[in-house]
Amino acid sequence: MSKTLTTRNEDYAQWYNDLILKSGLADYSAVRGCMVIKPHGYALWENMRDVLDKMFKDTGHQNAYFPLFVPKSLFEAEEKNAEGFAKECAVVTHYRLKTDPNNKGKLIVDPEAKLEEELVVRPTSEAIIWNTYKGWIQSYRDLPLLINQWANVVRWEMRTRLFLRTAEFLWQEGHTAHATKEEAIIETKKMLDVYATFAEEYMAMPVIKGVKTANERFAGAEDTYCIEALMQDGKALQAGTSHFLGQNFAKAFDVKFMDKANKQEYVWATSWGVSTRLIGALVMAHSDDSGLILPPKLAPIQVVIIPIYKGDDTRSLINDKCANIIQQMQAKGIRVKLDADDSTRSGWKFAEYELKGVPVRIALGARDIENNKAEVARRDTKEKTSLPLDNLCEQIIDLLADIQTNIYNRALQFRDEHITPANTMDELIAILDGKAGFVSAHWDGTSETEEKIKELTKATIRCIPINNVEEAGTCILTGKPSIQRVLFARAY
Amino acid sequence: MSKTLTTRNEDYAQWYNDLILKSGLADYSAVRGCMVIKPHGYALWENMRDVLDKMFKDTGHQNAYFPLFVPKSLFEAEEKNAEGFAKECAVVTHYRLKTDPNNKGKLIVDPEAKLEEELVVRPTSEAIIWNTYKGWIQSYRDLPLLINQWANVVRWEMRTRLFLRTAEFLWQEGHTAHATKEEAIIETKKMLDVYATFAEEYMAMPVIKGVKTANERFAGAEDTYCIEALMQDGKALQAGTSHFLGQNFAKAFDVKFMDKANKQEYVWATSWGVSTRLIGALVMAHSDDSGLILPPKLAPIQVVIIPIYKGDDTRSLINDKCANIIQQMQAKGIRVKLDADDSTRSGWKFAEYELKGVPVRIALGARDIENNKAEVARRDTKEKTSLPLDNLCEQIIDLLADIQTNIYNRALQFRDEHITPANTMDELIAILDGKAGFVSAHWDGTSETEEKIKELTKATIRCIPINNVEEAGTCILTGKPSIQRVLFARAY
Repeated sequence: MSKTLTTRNEDYAQWYNDLILKSGLADYSAVRGCMVIKPHGYALWENMRDVLDKMFKDTGHQNAYFPLFVPKSLFEAEEKNAEGFAKECAVVTHYRLKTDPNNKGKLIVDPEAKLEEELVVRPTSEAIIWNTYKGWIQSYRDLPLLINQWANVVRWEMRTRLFLRTAEFLWQEGHTAHATKEEAIIETKKMLDVYATFAEEYMAMPVIKGVKTANERFAGAEDTYCIEALMQDGKALQAGTSHFLGQNFAKAFDVKFMDKANKQEYVWATSWGVSTRLIGALVMAHSDDSGLILPPKLAPIQVVIIPIYKGDDTRSLINDKCANIIQQMQAKGIRVKLDADDSTRSGWKFAEYELKGVPVRIALGARDIENNKAEVARRDTKEKTSLPLDNLCEQIIDLLADIQTNIYNRALQFRDEHITPANTMDELIAILDGKAGFVSAHWDGTSETEEKIKELTKATIRCIPINNVEEAGTCILTGKPSIQRVLFARAY
Repeated sequence: MSKTLTTRNEDYAQWYNDLILKSGLADYSAVRGCMVIKPHGYALWENMRDVLDKMFKDTGHQNAYFPLFVPKSLFEAEEKNAEGFAKECAVVTHYRLKTDPNNKGKLIVDPEAKLEEELVVRPTSEAIIWNTYKGWIQSYRDLPLLINQWANVVRWEMRTRLFLRTAEFLWQEGHTAHATKEEAIIETKKMLDVYATFAEEYMAMPVIKGVKTANERFAGAEDTYCIEALMQDGKALQAGTSHFLGQNFAKAFDVKFMDKANKQEYVWATSWGVSTRLIGALVMAHSDDSGLILPPKLAPIQVVIIPIYKGDDTRSLINDKCANIIQQMQAKGIRVKLDADDSTRSGWKFAEYELKGVPVRIALGARDIENNKAEVARRDTKEKTSLPLDNLCEQIIDLLADIQTNIYNRALQFRDEHITPANTMDELIAILDGKAGFVSAHWDGTSETEEKIKELTKATIRCIPINNVEEAGTCILTGKPSIQRVLFARAY
């Protein structure tokens, strides 16, 4: 397979697919809409998971694990949630295969092993979890219940794209239960903040925190909060959501608690999740035509060291120096890899690690050692510098921090340059078809208008930003009064 | 719910179920045969996973993730594997639900959304993985391919038990590809050693390494290696397996590589796995009638500190001292919890942490501080001692190590006392019905004899121990010549 990527200018969508496949993040599979997450992609996901998991635990959450399957009768209990997901459910109907009597060596579904009740493969776990919570919650002493689950879920999407939209994906889903509405809303916002912090500080990806309109709300939620990011092609991407579920699931599953005044009350709920979709976001936020650009805080390999051998006499000198540097770096917690493979040329290796997004590359030859220097290349700007070998480790730590900051600032500048006000439909369309990005415009607050604008422009309201400035105006479609601008964009 | 357990003598199976439920490891779910892993159980699994994951990575493996679903045509490609799992497969046949026209608010499977090809929910992933490997392996340079996956799998078991046998369970499955048979066999044995080390050094559970007979072999394997543990009721439990798969999957999925001599050869394979079943093993290996006994190396909480308040004047003195001890312990990496909840009595707390298996409990009151002492109770022996507060942290570290060693030795002694030779069928039956445990006996090496013994005694051959001593003898059932004793037991 050629390692050359389609460029972003040529075909952004093709560039993305090429990059995912060629950098070794993922591969297609034999199952429609499902992908294989390859070792490089999975290592990235593990780093993301570990950071998020610590943030969840630091905010008082515990992990648990609930069944993959949801019996249909539970699935349909919360009507809006069921209605929202019914069209994309994989359904298990049988529990056995048998030998095909007409076709040696083949199997058929055994018609005698039909389930009495069909099982839905979880598209999200509110139903199975709230059915369980019913047994766990009796009194205010059992609240708040703060649980998270790392799991796979399945949504039978018609059009899929690697990481961004796959039939099966990996995610975490938090499901919390509270005694009061206020407490549940605080939790919803707290977890949105956790997501925003993670996106900005670890993924180096600026996000806008906001609230979804009714059209874009999670099925079964009272309010959906979201973080929205901007990709390099000017399309928005929903990177995480946190839902205030009110008492909808408590009522559907009859989950009540005895409050301090000995009164039975329904429990208040939240749920929140991010998924392997974040990997797609990360790729599209930073990468270039040479390959991935990964933020140092999440990169599976932060530094690669490539010895440059010229003749056998200096080989052990170089190897010793490399070993020495690696030891020092590992002691400082740097994820460093040595690539001393003789069977490939250095130039090939340089391109390979650029493709894989390794933030820092160090090349070290005999001449470098003689001069007490190393050639250091940073992936984000492709700048090469010669750094003194003394204190190399400390300099690399600073460089990694600088790369993290730089790619965040670059993405932030791009994002900020791509929030454009529009005061008419013509302006909205011109921006969407031109520079793209977020468009800040007045909207009359109705679902009908939003739907109509979507039909006309393929743009949706990504969110109503939190702490939005109130500004009297008129809806760009209907001319009706509006109290604030909202953010439109075409989105992934 | 009462916290009192059925005792092991009264009813061992009921004791086990009570313990799992009341200690908060797991709960039943609304899905037949599936369980909910509760926070305490999941924290234990996370600790087990993290240790194993590091051991896998230290032996050169990388993690990846493959689809949950296996198209039926791939599933049936390796015939023996397919035959072995066909009877316990959950099968997805449809991808959509729709509103029931005859029943408002209810959903039915949409008959128009029938899949062209049914999807099997993975009972194990050889098929989907080897179908993928076909695209990843061309040359000897691509080998060995050393990949592990952490995932959920589904096997539709008719009789289920919490952790030990559930329809869905969590596990890891390693799948490796090699250029030579020898290398694959070395890998198979290496991973068996990893499992044995993990079981003995972390779970404090002695195991016997061995090879399975043909009857007990993994469907599709040439050889299945296993570790077998002994539970306190004298029943054996298979705790992990490592399979040499020969070229069976390479042939079924046509995975060939170009060797150094430019010749096309089929690839050699292994697979190996352990699951949440290990939690069941851990519980049954060590626990007692008061609750769980967890090995310190895996316990989610290693030390619990319970302040004993008597009057308000010494409260802050006690709190300061507790905070000080906790800080010191956390700095040393001890997983410590403070339980200063005023609303429950100390006696209740003591029982609760015994039930949850916390290895060390420290109670600290004003009088203790005055005497510069703390009351320390160890869970394994229930001994209480008064330890000086100076260097308490170091003493606790030693105590945790001592507990780890003690529960291993206790289990080892029990295991070793329960390997009994038998030279006749009558002896075999008498042992199985009496002291139980492993029975070492001669067997003629045929599947028929093994099957017949199983029918007569409900015991199976757990394994032929690795490095078994050869000893001429006669089969206890048929009287035919035998070259070695094998280990029989009734098993979970």
